Amino acid sequence: MLLHKRKFNPEDDLGFGQQPVIKNQRLINRDGSVNVKRRGVSRFSTSNNYHTLITMGWGKFWVFVLTGYLIANLIFAAIYVSLGTGSLNGAEGINFFERFMDAFFFSAQTISTVGYGHISPHGMMANSVAAMESMIGLLAFALATGLLYGRFSRPSAKIKFSKNLLVAPYQENGRGIMFRLANLRRNTLIDLQMEVIFSYNEDVDGKKIRRFLSLDLERKRVSILTMNWTVVHPLNDDSPLRDITPEDMQKGEASFAILLKAFDDTFSQTVHSRTSYQFDEMVWDAKFKPAFDRDVEGRLVLDLDKIDHFELVR
Amino acid sequence: MLLHKRKFNPEDDLGFGQQPVIKNQRLINRDGSVNVKRRGVSRFSTSNNYHTLITMGWGKFWVFVLTGYLIANLIFAAIYVSLGTGSLNGAEGINFFERFMDAFFFSAQTISTVGYGHISPHGMMANSVAAMESMIGLLAFALATGLLYGRFSRPSAKIKFSKNLLVAPYQENGRGIMFRLANLRRNTLIDLQMEVIFSYNEDVDGKKIRRFLSLDLERKRVSILTMNWTVVHPLNDDSPLRDITPEDMQKGEASFAILLKAFDDTFSQTVHSRTSYQFDEMVWDAKFKPAFDRDVEGRLVLDLDKIDHFELVR
Amino acid sequence: MLLHKRKFNPEDDLGFGQQPVIKNQRLINRDGSVNVKRRGVSRFSTSNNYHTLITMGWGKFWVFVLTGYLIANLIFAAIYVSLGTGSLNGAEGINFFERFMDAFFFSAQTISTVGYGHISPHGMMANSVAAMESMIGLLAFALATGLLYGRFSRPSAKIKFSKNLLVAPYQENGRGIMFRLANLRRNTLIDLQMEVIFSYNEDVDGKKIRRFLSLDLERKRVSILTMNWTVVHPLNDDSPLRDITPEDMQKGEASFAILLKAFDDTFSQTVHSRTSYQFDEMVWDAKFKPAFDRDVEGRLVLDLDKIDHFELVR
Amino acid sequence: MLLHKRKFNPEDDLGFGQQPVIKNQRLINRDGSVNVKRRGVSRFSTSNNYHTLITMGWGKFWVFVLTGYLIANLIFAAIYVSLGTGSLNGAEGINFFERFMDAFFFSAQTISTVGYGHISPHGMMANSVAAMESMIGLLAFALATGLLYGRFSRPSAKIKFSKNLLVAPYQENGRGIMFRLANLRRNTLIDLQMEVIFSYNEDVDGKKIRRFLSLDLERKRVSILTMNWTVVHPLNDDSPLRDITPEDMQKGEASFAILLKAFDDTFSQTVHSRTSYQFDEMVWDAKFKPAFDRDVEGRLVLDLDKIDHFELVR
Repeated sequence: MLLHKRKFNPEDDLGFGQQPVIKNQRLINRDGSVNVKRRGVSRFSTSNNYHTLITMGWGKFWVFVLTGYLIANLIFAAIYVSLGTGSLNGAEGINFFERFMDAFFFSAQTISTVGYGHISPHGMMANSVAAMESMIGLLAFALATGLLYGRFSRPSAKIKFSKNLLVAPYQENGRGIMFRLANLRRNTLIDLQMEVIFSYNEDVDGKKIRRFLSLDLERKRVSILTMNWTVVHPLNDDSPLRDITPEDMQKGEASFAILLKAFDDTFSQTVHSRTSYQFDEMVWDAKFKPAFDRDVEGRLVLDLDKIDHFELVR
Repeated sequence: MLLHKRKFNPEDDLGFGQQPVIKNQRLINRDGSVNVKRRGVSRFSTSNNYHTLITMGWGKFWVFVLTGYLIANLIFAAIYVSLGTGSLNGAEGINFFERFMDAFFFSAQTISTVGYGHISPHGMMANSVAAMESMIGLLAFALATGLLYGRFSRPSAKIKFSKNLLVAPYQENGRGIMFRLANLRRNTLIDLQMEVIFSYNEDVDGKKIRRFLSLDLERKRVSILTMNWTVVHPLNDDSPLRDITPEDMQKGEASFAILLKAFDDTFSQTVHSRTSYQFDEMVWDAKFKPAFDRDVEGRLVLDLDKIDHFELVR
Repeated sequence: MLLHKRKFNPEDDLGFGQQPVIKNQRLINRDGSVNVKRRGVSRFSTSNNYHTLITMGWGKFWVFVLTGYLIANLIFAAIYVSLGTGSLNGAEGINFFERFMDAFFFSAQTISTVGYGHISPHGMMANSVAAMESMIGLLAFALATGLLYGRFSRPSAKIKFSKNLLVAPYQENGRGIMFRLANLRRNTLIDLQMEVIFSYNEDVDGKKIRRFLSLDLERKRVSILTMNWTVVHPLNDDSPLRDITPEDMQKGEASFAILLKAFDDTFSQTVHSRTSYQFDEMVWDAKFKPAFDRDVEGRLVLDLDKIDHFELVR
Repeated sequence: MLLHKRKFNPEDDLGFGQQPVIKNQRLINRDGSVNVKRRGVSRFSTSNNYHTLITMGWGKFWVFVLTGYLIANLIFAAIYVSLGTGSLNGAEGINFFERFMDAFFFSAQTISTVGYGHISPHGMMANSVAAMESMIGLLAFALATGLLYGRFSRPSAKIKFSKNLLVAPYQENGRGIMFRLANLRRNTLIDLQMEVIFSYNEDVDGKKIRRFLSLDLERKRVSILTMNWTVVHPLNDDSPLRDITPEDMQKGEASFAILLKAFDDTFSQTVHSRTSYQFDEMVWDAKFKPAFDRDVEGRLVLDLDKIDHFELVR
């Protein structure tokens, strides 16, 4: 694969480094996650636990919380039962199962600090365990609710990127590589900055090497995202891809990594969004159709479902 | 509408893109919100819910919290009642309404973890429901209180912008487009950066196109906002608006988007504020009157109500 | 007051603007707060309340929390008493004072969700009030504890600036205006950036005008603050203050505003610190004495009390 | 120690300042902490307490929380006991030890707001103390749980730096000083920026002076850290270290401070990591071995244990 004007600049590097390529592999997935496994990451570090608990799905999270609550109560119930029949005043259970359930519900009332009191701890040991359990309950629920709120309030951009990357007409007689994006959330995004990294295989002395380079954009920053934003890499004389063909792209197993940075006005924090396109997601000689229309009052309406829409030209 | 020195630079673009203009529409409202509807935004995503709950008015928020508390207690009351008369020890209600109210208040005592205990759950089912309810109560109140504190502590600039945009005398024999702003809050704002985007309609081959360009400012950054700040776009030879007239402004349906970024010293976070001016909010040949005076001890006092004050000149 | 090489650049402006000066007034206090009153700031906005509650002294904060707790309980006690003698089961008070205290302590047990239950609400009204009180209690304590933690964990730099600004020998035969600073906290400060603004009175057509300009520094950024940092404005040919005398400084009522920005590694947030020096806090022909020595093991020790120490030269 | 091309630039300064060197001392430890003691740091300031509580080990933290819980309950137990036998209804203890334990467990039930109610306060004094204790309990547990969550969710980079600094072949016939790093956490790191500061002893008029200078890097910024990153200072004509020998390094007691800044995509915050290398951690004429292989499906796998691996060349 030959590029029009090779400008290899180490600063363009994505941090992937140069590497022999055995099998074509997207390094950034379409959903923006990194597609490289790591071996040796500690499984039990605090920070990884936090990361896991914050990013897991909601279903998994609820199962985790409920299971934790259940297990904690089972353990404490077993302790109270093991302390003997006199340890819980007001418990009326006679057989083992009933006594265990009394202890289980007493434990639930203690760990959640409800403490109705119709069952109450009696004796040194039961009281000590209950005092410890209520403290643990307060701390554990604080962690659970902290995580819940952290998940709920976590700033992250939800960007809809167009499904395809188009090679479209651009300015007079020119062409450009284009994709389109819009904000799927109600928050306002400010000060958006875009970086597009092109990668391809190059033959160096018979060995395939993966190269990465940053593409110039018509504009790489917009002040505020009110509508959609069409990001354009102009295929002009400065572009290393000026004369590239679909066959080149396929041969080089070309791919585009899209890195977006923005400031979220609701959360007052910087957010990032990533995606990638591969050569087989490119459409040649097509252009995007407008994604907005007017409502009955003549006001602009952006239709997020139309971000993907394009039409072929020529 | 003709501009003195057209310097159209794609980097100036606000992210609105070029678009045929059917009806004049402010893209940024005076209160800084974005005036473009979007269709297809998911109604039930976590992040949009958070955004809604954080930005809604206080009245609405309290109605939401109280209604949630009421509904949760009604649902749990119905469950306890459905479990039969023996499920709540200490409940003295005889007819259905009394039994329901006993269950309702027991539910409220459980969900808030008060748990007086004069009413207490009895039997496997009632105890299980109560154990679940106290857990849900802890998590739900954590979300509610997290939101409450999040609303209370949310960093956001509260800037008073002058009501009008003046075309005022500036330096020797010159003119400038000016507006003024001050901080309505007690927090100190540091490192303020200003961007002013001018937009207008242009006739291109009989079609009206909306153009956007960034205006140069006398100074676009101040280190700290102690008093008021008068932002000036000098109408000099470099300005595309040098020779513009009120008629041009009206014909082009001109508008100015004002984007301010600052660092809030209390919250240690970056905050943004936006507003916009339209051609009919401009005042020609006027200048701002001083907004500060001296108190009895001779100390400077900034009067926020005077930020809007101006007087006509010539 | 004449400056060697006047380079007035609007970008230097601190945001104070030009203003007639009636009486000498520091615009930034030594403790970094802004010394300008504002009239018309809303007293009851959420954000100002938050600002007040976060920045007030600890003594005041505790008085505020305790008073709030007391008043809330007094109000609810009055409500319970007004509902009649039968509304609180288990209350044994006979005269009004005893009944009020029973209601008061019941209220405290409800608002803090302790709910012992030896006193419990009875009847529709008392139960409803108690259900409402426990909800209010949860929300109010969440705000109080949020504020408490917010105060405790608020990122802010605590910088010790030297008491005086020295005019000291600098490099061969040169002089520089210098001050010194060190971190009073255990946190590590990274990527420190310094800005020094000089202001003085100038006579323009018989009127005194206050001017502000930014001074060049030997270095305005350090990567990490391990020891102390001596900030130097070299009095070389590029300095507007090259030939200035103590008399000039006094006549011009000169003052230096010091604005420091850094990244706090414990809080992972940007922090700021400010101070100011006035002409009468300058010491001419002096230099700082080293602020560190070696401990018994030969390790460097920075002595924060010696940051101010200087000795006269010549 | 002579450098090829001395470019001493004050901007390079790390904030250490120039200082006579008595004994070789790393100013930044391998774990990134600062190796300079400070005298006069206030021991009891809020911010230092927060810093201490957030950064102490988990074992210490739990001891601190448990001890606090124990001491608070001991103090309140003593108060309840001192109020006399009638102050706690339901307490059945007869001798002093039993009465104290009743008071102790009542205190634990109050401070954690469990409030079973089988023991309840009686009389004005006991009720007042209990009302106060439940309030203190809510606030203290809020601080403890805030700290717990703060510790759990604190953003900080966990970077594995290679154990050694290599002088390795670089490009055609060239050499470079290199080290390697990878992310030990599951979070994605974006927009990494690297700074390498070289320091060494210089003889100035017979006195040893410690100098610091910033080294140019092949690339000092990568967009995203997907694999490992090899940081290279090329020993070319622009490098002050071009002709340096191991003997020079030893004689000058050379050391390299490594300062990394990145954006953490999970926490949406900027994080920093630091380390240092000393002359005796350098390996001459060696190169890093690849740290990744392919799993059974041919996908790239980064092996964090191999980050340190190198082989000698020539």
